[in-house]
Amino acid sequence: MHEINVAGFLANLLVILLSAKLFGELAERWGQPPVLGELLGGVVLGLGLFGFRPGDPALALMAEFGVILLLFETGIHCDLERLLAAGPASLAVAAVGVALPFALGWAFMSALGRGGMQAVFVGAALTATSVGITARVLADMGRLDAPEAQIVLGAAVIDDILGIVILSAVQGVAESGALSWASVARTALLAAGFLAAALWLGPRVSRSLVGVVRGMRVRGVLIVSAVAFAFALALLAHAVGTALIVGAFTAGVLLAGTDRREDIDGALRPLADVFVPIFFVMVGARVSLGAYNPLVPGNLGMIALALGLAALAVLGKLASGWAVAGRGLNRLAVGAGMIPRGEVGLIFAQIGLSSGAIDAPLYAAVVGMVVVTTFLAPPILKRALA
Amino acid sequence: MHEINVAGFLANLLVILLSAKLFGELAERWGQPPVLGELLGGVVLGLGLFGFRPGDPALALMAEFGVILLLFETGIHCDLERLLAAGPASLAVAAVGVALPFALGWAFMSALGRGGMQAVFVGAALTATSVGITARVLADMGRLDAPEAQIVLGAAVIDDILGIVILSAVQGVAESGALSWASVARTALLAAGFLAAALWLGPRVSRSLVGVVRGMRVRGVLIVSAVAFAFALALLAHAVGTALIVGAFTAGVLLAGTDRREDIDGALRPLADVFVPIFFVMVGARVSLGAYNPLVPGNLGMIALALGLAALAVLGKLASGWAVAGRGLNRLAVGAGMIPRGEVGLIFAQIGLSSGAIDAPLYAAVVGMVVVTTFLAPPILKRALA
Repeated sequence: MHEINVAGFLANLLVILLSAKLFGELAERWGQPPVLGELLGGVVLGLGLFGFRPGDPALALMAEFGVILLLFETGIHCDLERLLAAGPASLAVAAVGVALPFALGWAFMSALGRGGMQAVFVGAALTATSVGITARVLADMGRLDAPEAQIVLGAAVIDDILGIVILSAVQGVAESGALSWASVARTALLAAGFLAAALWLGPRVSRSLVGVVRGMRVRGVLIVSAVAFAFALALLAHAVGTALIVGAFTAGVLLAGTDRREDIDGALRPLADVFVPIFFVMVGARVSLGAYNPLVPGNLGMIALALGLAALAVLGKLASGWAVAGRGLNRLAVGAGMIPRGEVGLIFAQIGLSSGAIDAPLYAAVVGMVVVTTFLAPPILKRALA
Repeated sequence: MHEINVAGFLANLLVILLSAKLFGELAERWGQPPVLGELLGGVVLGLGLFGFRPGDPALALMAEFGVILLLFETGIHCDLERLLAAGPASLAVAAVGVALPFALGWAFMSALGRGGMQAVFVGAALTATSVGITARVLADMGRLDAPEAQIVLGAAVIDDILGIVILSAVQGVAESGALSWASVARTALLAAGFLAAALWLGPRVSRSLVGVVRGMRVRGVLIVSAVAFAFALALLAHAVGTALIVGAFTAGVLLAGTDRREDIDGALRPLADVFVPIFFVMVGARVSLGAYNPLVPGNLGMIALALGLAALAVLGKLASGWAVAGRGLNRLAVGAGMIPRGEVGLIFAQIGLSSGAIDAPLYAAVVGMVVVTTFLAPPILKRALA
């Protein structure tokens, strides 16, 4: 046990929590979403202050624990019936919101004379929404029950699944140079099967779970069982090839339909309060500001490319929200909720880089695009909802 | 980020939480403290079921986070005035409870013809109480406010400090063969200085902290600040050479004196519910049952030695509780609360082993003594308090 550095780990956690609340409070006072402050706090820590090491695997695991709790909590605030009612709109927003940015990215790269595989990877990296930021802004504003929120959350789940399907296609192309329709179909069916099974069997499972827990006497059994249920569904989603957070979100939606919803929500809140900021601070801390120093020769072209891709990323999602969301809805909010890109986009870029399809400056530009969307989304979404 | 195995980590956490609640519930139904069930659940996991790896450093850090939350929560349930009022009794119980087991261990080893350094290390390993088990049993029984609980908790804090002082003495002997009084005095003064400063400045600091937090608007700021305060005091205690958990306990006692005690306690509860069982399951999982198989040749002598040391460990603490705790108190409960040995005892054994002062079978016997006291303390303490 004594080879692990408990004090160093606690010191890192302490610095993360303090900077999250300090910068979050500053953001709040300047009328910005607190999550923007947490991201900025992370960027500051990422500069290497306080001996902070963003690469620490234990901190990365705490951050993942945080984003799982965030999506679980988001699910608990959702109503399955309303989510299903918003289903067709979500599906349309997700489909157009994947197709349009892909087409824009592909066309942009082709216009720059960098067509073929480069254009495919860049287009793919522009597709997948990262729902964490949006969920957090909606929760902070107390707007998770708005119809726009239901559409965006449903679309983000579908979007995540589409992203995984595209990923399996792109991965096949990168490995064998040819598209494997069988593998793509298998990935799509598994993900759809998970969602269908969760929605069909889930309510019965979650109700029996609550029944079993009711008969138990030991302290803390409700919150521990709820967290265990979220972990179990996250692992199940992961096992069928979907994202962990899709499973955690589904677990939340299912428990929202039980009569212990309020108790679970109340007990989950302090857990989320402590762990969710760790995720956003770590996202900020992984931004290497130095890589985007415009004074370094050769960086300017990459920065221009990153800004161009970011503009396409923002416009592509705003346009799909505008085009597809029904009348009487806040279309700007729907589009803005889809702006943040995240892990899936970065995975595309990494596969492209390691397979040689894209080069290092283009990789840095894609990472820059992800960072810009992450930082732009909270203020745009907040303004759209205000 | 993708070199870290998030799914594997979640799967381990899931298995830990489920076994904690399953075995905890069984223990509760059999009239035993739930913590005993969690320890047993850990032993079962430690057999290698479900691909569980107790050596995972991220899990070890989660466990440490759990024990820090446990002592923090224990502190919040303490009243500084009553703790100070119990101070003289605590000091007496701690002093006799360190001296008597040391003398018993030393005499026992000398009687076996294994005097000198071996007897010193074994005596030292018998001294330090591990307060986690006791705090958990008292909390589960809702008896943290009993006068016996105040004496035991105060004594455990003093005991932990005495343990660190003895450790610095023994470490000096192991390294140089001679006792360094200067180093021992320095360790003792730093630890006493930390406690004095915390008790003197602490109330003012904790009240201004609560004042600052009251002026902040961002979500979750109270619980995050409370946890950050606990981390900060734990790190401060560690920096002056005392244990992290002494600092976390002190932070809890100080916040208990503020007007946000109830709010902090309520928000801390779900955090403790999830993380504290991880600590006890991991303690159980680190027990290598195989090492104590009586059928393996040569193990029998070691097992007899372990049982002899465990008997001395239990009797030594019970006798000091009996001799020193004042009239009108439940003396058996005071002694029983001091029975569990833990990390500090294991550190003594490890230093003895690595310096060559004790051999491998004697090391295994000391570890066995720690395990036996850990498992015996909860039922004895529960019966004493019933």
